[in-house]
Amino acid sequence: LFRFEETSNQIMQLSPATPKILCVLRNFVAHAKELNNPLPAKPIFFLKPPSAIVTEAGNGGFIDVPAGVECHHEVELGVVIGKGGRNIPEETALEHVKGYVLCLDLTARDIQAQAKKDGMPWTEAKGLDSFCPIGEYLPKERIADPQQVELWLKVNGAVRQQALTDLMIFPVARQIAAASQRFTLTEGDLLLTGTPAGVGPLVDGDVVTAGITGITEMTFRVRQLH
Amino acid sequence: LFRFEETSNQIMQLSPATPKILCVLRNFVAHAKELNNPLPAKPIFFLKPPSAIVTEAGNGGFIDVPAGVECHHEVELGVVIGKGGRNIPEETALEHVKGYVLCLDLTARDIQAQAKKDGMPWTEAKGLDSFCPIGEYLPKERIADPQQVELWLKVNGAVRQQALTDLMIFPVARQIAAASQRFTLTEGDLLLTGTPAGVGPLVDGDVVTAGITGITEMTFRVRQLH
Ligand SMILES: [Mg+2]
Ligand SMILES: [Mg+2]
Ligand SMILES: [Mg+2]
Repeated sequence: LFRFEETSNQIMQLSPATPKILCVLRNFVAHAKELNNPLPAKPIFFLKPPSAIVTEAGNGGFIDVPAGVECHHEVELGVVIGKGGRNIPEETALEHVKGYVLCLDLTARDIQAQAKKDGMPWTEAKGLDSFCPIGEYLPKERIADPQQVELWLKVNGAVRQQALTDLMIFPVARQIAAASQRFTLTEGDLLLTGTPAGVGPLVDGDVVTAGITGITEMTFRVRQLH
Repeated sequence: LFRFEETSNQIMQLSPATPKILCVLRNFVAHAKELNNPLPAKPIFFLKPPSAIVTEAGNGGFIDVPAGVECHHEVELGVVIGKGGRNIPEETALEHVKGYVLCLDLTARDIQAQAKKDGMPWTEAKGLDSFCPIGEYLPKERIADPQQVELWLKVNGAVRQQALTDLMIFPVARQIAAASQRFTLTEGDLLLTGTPAGVGPLVDGDVVTAGITGITEMTFRVRQLH
């Protein structure tokens, strides 16, 4: 038996406690319908790599879209986990929330469509560099009830997505409970909780502004890579 | 603009430099054929969450299989990234390797089959707790050529997988180059490089031993959860 702690933190860096980005899919009825997707019977998750994170201050505030890729915006409420756990009961799940962060679950819709057709992983469609723009960290106190905030997103000033989080099929607490039955949650994990209707393409030069009404706002510019 | 560094490392913990686990699929012809899968034209990746990592010393050396889940063993050479990068050329890709670690890419084959059929993410099939057993950290010097090592896996003493890594469709250098075109690589990233033929189910009480011939060996026991 080797002592993991010796190798992990000092040499490998990666350990079971390394934070991850979990995202729930099809969590707003109107969004599932706009993409002709069936509604899930339980929360289903996928991962985004941390390398996809971009901030207004990082990468010059740019969302980078590779040439030929159809990038869709999805505005989502991000939940930052404080106390980790496994098999967390829904009743106490919100006690495991440390804070919130506004996120875009950018999606290469064309790559995703091909992956779905081929039965392949969603990783490339969801995980390209800069495909996880995030806003400022919001301590838990800033949001009294995660099911009672309004998410919005504008492209070049025109509203594309706007909805209250009380429309979620699976509320945040249910998502935390469900995720923790499959994947042990650890401090620093980020959970993207699904997008409302109105997703659509972003093209070179677009200015994307997103917000949680009355709480936070962020702006990114879209740049096509060649 | 908010300063990401202030929130990320101290409060959010997650940053673009947080290490990830990337895995390549269908990288040995005989393995792709045994599952009746077409061969990929280029390396295709998926993610495992760090929470899936288990070591001989962690979790008591147990692989935990939820009741009703068909868990398959896949022995793989893990590559630990040292110097990160984006668009790394294949020619210099091995300079980005810091070391190696023997890994099992455990797979809930039944959940994966359903996900493939439904066009859903592979995350649950690949990412359950303890579904990424890893061995001791091997500094780069321990493996002269990653395409010239033998991987093997035994279940209860019977050999199930045994193959030289020169059978990889996409060698390690090509995988690093391909991965870095989509996902910026960062120090500490772990790359699972594909499994040879011979995958099969693990059931309660099985003892799994895997190794890189002449270099390292690890043992796990399978425990069914109720
Ligand atoms: Mg996936
Ligand atoms: Mg989404
Ligand atoms: Mg594999």
